[in-house]
Amino acid sequence: MASGKPASGEDALIARYFRPLATDPGAFGLDDDAAALKPDGDEIVVTTDAIVEGVHFLPDDPPDTIARKALRVNLSDLAAKGATPAGFVLTLALRGADEVWLKPFAAALGEDATQFKCPLLGGDTVSTPGPLMVSVTAFGRVPTGKMIHRSGAKPGERVMVTGTIGDAALGLAVLKGGKIHAAATDTAARETLVGRYRVPQPRVAMAEIVREHASAAMDVSDGLAGDLTKLCGVSDVSAVIDLASIPLSDAARDLVSRGIVGLETLIAGGDDYEILCTIAEDRVDAFAQAVKRAGVSVSSIGTVIAGNTAPKFIDAQGREITLERRSYSHF
Amino acid sequence: MASGKPASGEDALIARYFRPLATDPGAFGLDDDAAALKPDGDEIVVTTDAIVEGVHFLPDDPPDTIARKALRVNLSDLAAKGATPAGFVLTLALRGADEVWLKPFAAALGEDATQFKCPLLGGDTVSTPGPLMVSVTAFGRVPTGKMIHRSGAKPGERVMVTGTIGDAALGLAVLKGGKIHAAATDTAARETLVGRYRVPQPRVAMAEIVREHASAAMDVSDGLAGDLTKLCGVSDVSAVIDLASIPLSDAARDLVSRGIVGLETLIAGGDDYEILCTIAEDRVDAFAQAVKRAGVSVSSIGTVIAGNTAPKFIDAQGREITLERRSYSHF
Repeated sequence: MASGKPASGEDALIARYFRPLATDPGAFGLDDDAAALKPDGDEIVVTTDAIVEGVHFLPDDPPDTIARKALRVNLSDLAAKGATPAGFVLTLALRGADEVWLKPFAAALGEDATQFKCPLLGGDTVSTPGPLMVSVTAFGRVPTGKMIHRSGAKPGERVMVTGTIGDAALGLAVLKGGKIHAAATDTAARETLVGRYRVPQPRVAMAEIVREHASAAMDVSDGLAGDLTKLCGVSDVSAVIDLASIPLSDAARDLVSRGIVGLETLIAGGDDYEILCTIAEDRVDAFAQAVKRAGVSVSSIGTVIAGNTAPKFIDAQGREITLERRSYSHF
Repeated sequence: MASGKPASGEDALIARYFRPLATDPGAFGLDDDAAALKPDGDEIVVTTDAIVEGVHFLPDDPPDTIARKALRVNLSDLAAKGATPAGFVLTLALRGADEVWLKPFAAALGEDATQFKCPLLGGDTVSTPGPLMVSVTAFGRVPTGKMIHRSGAKPGERVMVTGTIGDAALGLAVLKGGKIHAAATDTAARETLVGRYRVPQPRVAMAEIVREHASAAMDVSDGLAGDLTKLCGVSDVSAVIDLASIPLSDAARDLVSRGIVGLETLIAGGDDYEILCTIAEDRVDAFAQAVKRAGVSVSSIGTVIAGNTAPKFIDAQGREITLERRSYSHF
């Protein structure tokens, strides 16, 4: 994304839309081949996530929502690792330099970069004959050695999750049409669900709280069931989850209670971008209070147990349910 | 690219092919959502470059060459900034999990990561219905404040470039067929040119030398003429370049002398991945000796002058030539 004098279409495009976002001194006004991150004594946490048209977003999703999603899925990872945002680089693969698309894309990206204190540091803009793709690598800071891992969960600890689960999967279903689209007749509810799919709310406010209290954490991006299975696998533990405790929005609860959608669909659906973490019993109260002060809701959904089987999901009648699918997989 | 128990196709693929590459402790065995970079008192230099099938490489290029190119174009940027490689993250957009393709891709990536001491730290693997795309964000280290910029060139300094210019553009022309393909009848010469296009040789050995001696530097990726124009633009200077001094390989020189291709094509072609830098007159000897000790060839091709016009290219008869095109642009 570096550019000197705008000598070409690519450079002119970068100068016009992205240079105004490069406010951090380490971005060198996008006039260089690289950016610089000052260490400031911290460890740099690095995460990278790409979104592809037709896979992670729909071809007619508004460009501002695509920009926000691309950055936010990465901010979500940083928050779950206990890291404070420090900046990001962007790779944009475009079919052409469509300014009608680029202008709102860059404006929204800039707004999010400001809101979440995560400045644009650099990037690369390339042409592609194929689908639009936005790849972001984001950087965060933690005191050295203090990043929270997927490993670290211990038997007896509480499994907790922020916000509500399954809304984004329902939002995608609404956009795709079909029975959920037909059943979600309430306009406000539809908009809420679609909004959750298009523009995740990264739990940036949780970073310090996760760092202080969680033994293990990750963000829920590929489905709660599958992601918890991964966390347990790396931690070498298992878990028992009370299905009735899994937090649902009013819109999701309504669709479940009317039999339109099963809980299974919600906990195996992707794009929640909530934080899943394990908390030692003697820290649960302090954690819950800190989360509440941060203006975030949090639910206790189960318990970590010893073992190396996949987590069990127990229904209101105390029966274990069998999940046919636990998460989204690309292949 | 994080994965716990291989619960899905994507995770199994990552575990099989990429986990063996994640030897750095900061990669956490790709078992987490993020990697960690220890600061070690240095500044972290960040660069990102993506390559797209049909744009930066050809659909039938061997997978090992695609892996090497994706990493090396980033290593080239780090070297030009004076930064020592520290690691990279990878975003891979694939149409499917084709193991026949992935196996040699990952093996070559691992070999390059070892050779250039730039370990895989993490990444993201996504599906795409479109062209294959490999996006790399690479990290390097410099002592704080010592990154070399595009800005900093001053009138009177020497313009210098490593290696030879134009071979990759000729290699691409050979692969595409046409008159250059027909004219490049010598098999060894053809292989050299194609090799330069498919597998750049990043000047990693130059990093410390650039840091010590250069006033400004960048890598030549979009064409020498255009890249020098960018460097001069950011430095607020101009330059006079002696066309006859631009270093050419024997294969390129042969094609030029036979009138098959003009010098203009070579200096406006992309993918050289050589280092272009400016050196103060009293440092030229020390710089040249250090470069020679590093086993790299370097040529003095002109002089920085005051002014804000685009650099002038002067032919053997002392006439300024007009360039119709200075570099590759995506749009």
